[in-house]
Amino acid sequence: MTQSWWLNPCRPVDTQALKQALARQQQLTKPAGSLGQLESVAVQLAGLQGRVKPSLEQVWIAIFAGDHGVVAEGVSAFPQEVTGQMLLNFVSGGAAISVLARQLGASLEVVDLGTVTSSLNLPGVRHLNVGPGTANFVQGPAMTAAQGQLALQAGRDSVQRAIATGAQLFIGGEMGIGNTTAASALACALLDCPVGHLTGPGTGLNAEGVSHKARVIERALALHAAQRGDALQTLFNLGGFEIAALVGAYLACAQGGVAVLVDGFICSVAALVAVRLNPECRQWLLFGHRGAEPGHRHVLETLDAQPLLDLGLRLGEGSGAALAVPLLRLACDLHGQMATFAEAAVADRPA
Amino acid sequence: MTQSWWLNPCRPVDTQALKQALARQQQLTKPAGSLGQLESVAVQLAGLQGRVKPSLEQVWIAIFAGDHGVVAEGVSAFPQEVTGQMLLNFVSGGAAISVLARQLGASLEVVDLGTVTSSLNLPGVRHLNVGPGTANFVQGPAMTAAQGQLALQAGRDSVQRAIATGAQLFIGGEMGIGNTTAASALACALLDCPVGHLTGPGTGLNAEGVSHKARVIERALALHAAQRGDALQTLFNLGGFEIAALVGAYLACAQGGVAVLVDGFICSVAALVAVRLNPECRQWLLFGHRGAEPGHRHVLETLDAQPLLDLGLRLGEGSGAALAVPLLRLACDLHGQMATFAEAAVADRPA
Repeated sequence: MTQSWWLNPCRPVDTQALKQALARQQQLTKPAGSLGQLESVAVQLAGLQGRVKPSLEQVWIAIFAGDHGVVAEGVSAFPQEVTGQMLLNFVSGGAAISVLARQLGASLEVVDLGTVTSSLNLPGVRHLNVGPGTANFVQGPAMTAAQGQLALQAGRDSVQRAIATGAQLFIGGEMGIGNTTAASALACALLDCPVGHLTGPGTGLNAEGVSHKARVIERALALHAAQRGDALQTLFNLGGFEIAALVGAYLACAQGGVAVLVDGFICSVAALVAVRLNPECRQWLLFGHRGAEPGHRHVLETLDAQPLLDLGLRLGEGSGAALAVPLLRLACDLHGQMATFAEAAVADRPA
Repeated sequence: MTQSWWLNPCRPVDTQALKQALARQQQLTKPAGSLGQLESVAVQLAGLQGRVKPSLEQVWIAIFAGDHGVVAEGVSAFPQEVTGQMLLNFVSGGAAISVLARQLGASLEVVDLGTVTSSLNLPGVRHLNVGPGTANFVQGPAMTAAQGQLALQAGRDSVQRAIATGAQLFIGGEMGIGNTTAASALACALLDCPVGHLTGPGTGLNAEGVSHKARVIERALALHAAQRGDALQTLFNLGGFEIAALVGAYLACAQGGVAVLVDGFICSVAALVAVRLNPECRQWLLFGHRGAEPGHRHVLETLDAQPLLDLGLRLGEGSGAALAVPLLRLACDLHGQMATFAEAAVADRPA
């Protein structure tokens, strides 16, 4: 493992392909701009893929799972053993992301960074045993630097496998009881934003539960305040193994030239960390949806992200990004297959 | 043709299937409600299809085209012959809706109610010759009652063909240079809403063009003011052939038991007319997207509609509805294929 590989340069966008794609959009038989956001994403993908007519046949979905020591503080509506139970559900085909991956014809990889269920050995799951979940971050750092680097590398390794299969789009998903608490704490530290704006019900806390969660996050922020200016150390102090893996994956995609479709709140916080570490990665990130977790819109605004969907989703697992894949594919189909005004002998509007 | 068939009762929703689908949603391995709007549309479709696990394999798309006499007032950015030219583009496969229908595996039917290009005889297009476009509605009614009834019936006929092929979802599209003017005028008359709120750029007018269009609509509303209380006569006074066909199609779907996915501004105005004529049809209507035309959100609010997409689309042709089809299909897949907590041996949250 190269030290600090995540700081290596990102691949530049192909501005020639991007300009040609933009010119093509203006010639298609429709009022200019009438396909809205689908026009801009097709042009962006052309620039990322270096092809005037991009396509998204090969989609790679990697779910990163990990447990969170902060669950000891009572911040989640679900019991912690659900993380491990859901790993089995992912590979058995019964989880939302399993159904979506199957319908989309996408590759689905499940990476267990480390859960509290230490004896897990599930066929089809990559168990990395970075630790038995993170430590409780109101008492100390969530992970050691060594653990954090292993998790970053786990995301990078998944991207290497994606590239080897010819993936044209990378979706990272996450599973980890307690991980909205970690994501909210991370976002508060990086954005210097009031805890109340970035803390929400997660999988289903009531108002009292949300208030308690916010107080837990306040304690964590106070403990780790001195290192707020250091995005990497803040990730290790307040993040989760699966969040660090997402950060590593997004950066490896930008370095390796694979477009990313970011999922919901937790993934967007990982994207924020990635952009803080290596700002040029931003142009490789597309955003699948605006989720129901209230902090998500703040993070999206900071990233100047315009997600494709807004359906009140709050499931995680990469599901919101997966749901947006057909839109991206149809955007590519429209861009590549529609007739031009000249081809169809249709009158354009007078100049 | 039965007189006033559009007032016949709509098919009732299967409340048993709907309740069972709702109960199933609560058991799937995800936090309750975490799939947001996709949960409610799956449950709604269960009620409409009378099946606990609905599906949307067979999708029928009908494009209704017609020209508009009001174009003589200079209300459109595009020349009027484009309506006929686009008919050829639809059946040649180069239009946006042609690409989308192909990718979705949907049936695509093109119905020409009547354009200014009278000699058109295109293979694959149903030319109905209701008239050489509508009359200019600032000078008199857009269509006669006989023409209006032919157009309503044309929509119903398309739905009969859809039902014969086993269609599980009906999408109506429209094409007609000038038809945002007709739709805005209709919506103003039915909603008693200021013209400025419901008039927009259509295919691409500048601010001056929009002001002119609004003044044209004001004149039409004044001319036909006495009949505002009569939704059917208002449709004939201010509508278009393709708009009347959409009204007839939506009502025939509700009577025949086929779910409808409504497209953008013009289709939503047709849905508004349908609901005014026969309010029970409302429960058969789903809405594909919120478009860029500013009047669309007023019409959607009046209909209490929550569209699936909001991508700044303003193309018409049924394209926004078609783009939402994969979301509906995935909603059905998730609803039908996800494991329950019991099946997957995953702990639910404590009650």
